[in-house]
Amino acid sequence: MAANIFDTAYTLEKNIRESAEFVDLKIQYASLYADEAARKLFDDFRTVQMNLQEKQMTGQPISQEEVVQAQQMVSVIQQNNKITRLIEAEQKMSSVIAEINKIVMKPLEELYSQQQDQ
Amino acid sequence: MAANIFDTAYTLEKNIRESAEFVDLKIQYASLYADEAARKLFDDFRTVQMNLQEKQMTGQPISQEEVVQAQQMVSVIQQNNKITRLIEAEQKMSSVIAEINKIVMKPLEELYSQQQDQ
Ligand SMILES: [Ca+2]
Ligand SMILES: [Ca+2]
Repeated sequence: MAANIFDTAYTLEKNIRESAEFVDLKIQYASLYADEAARKLFDDFRTVQMNLQEKQMTGQPISQEEVVQAQQMVSVIQQNNKITRLIEAEQKMSSVIAEINKIVMKPLEELYSQQQDQ
Repeated sequence: MAANIFDTAYTLEKNIRESAEFVDLKIQYASLYADEAARKLFDDFRTVQMNLQEKQMTGQPISQEEVVQAQQMVSVIQQNNKITRLIEAEQKMSSVIAEINKIVMKPLEELYSQQQDQ
């Protein structure tokens, strides 16, 4: 019954794989990862970022020191072209994915919002 | 550039809307909501369920009383055909959505797992 759905989902997967956004994201990752120092900087940044996010989500306190550390890291990172290009590519890919989710989830979203109105 | 992606996403939205799973979910909702008593029971169940989930996610303690209350509600609900049919329809729809997400997110998942292996 749901055969059409999965055929279309596979087509969408192929479209994503061939999209300018995905191809660019792969290029930017390869470029960053070919540069040991930039990669180390980026990995450290991601670690700090994930620790802060985890603390926020679980309601743990974030120290002033941690905030300053994160801010300093952002300034350093903003001066590295390979990292800024990668972050930009990630943001463009994320926008595409968010737009897809918005379109695809519309039937369910409509169904649930109708229920709440009743 | 991303035109193909969105055309395909709209096709997928249409496929979902016309799927047996979505049509059945709508029917089960309409059937439940036409029955005031069953609907009230279901709404109360969802409220209890969401409160427990919120407590779990934010790490708040769940009392023995709350656990017993939830268990009692599950027993009552399991005896209501309209509610069990709706829950079953929701689970089938969720499986379809999970399968779609798995397919569509594969390019990004592969990209990120390659990075971690390096
Ligand atoms: Ca309601
Ligand atoms: Ca790594």
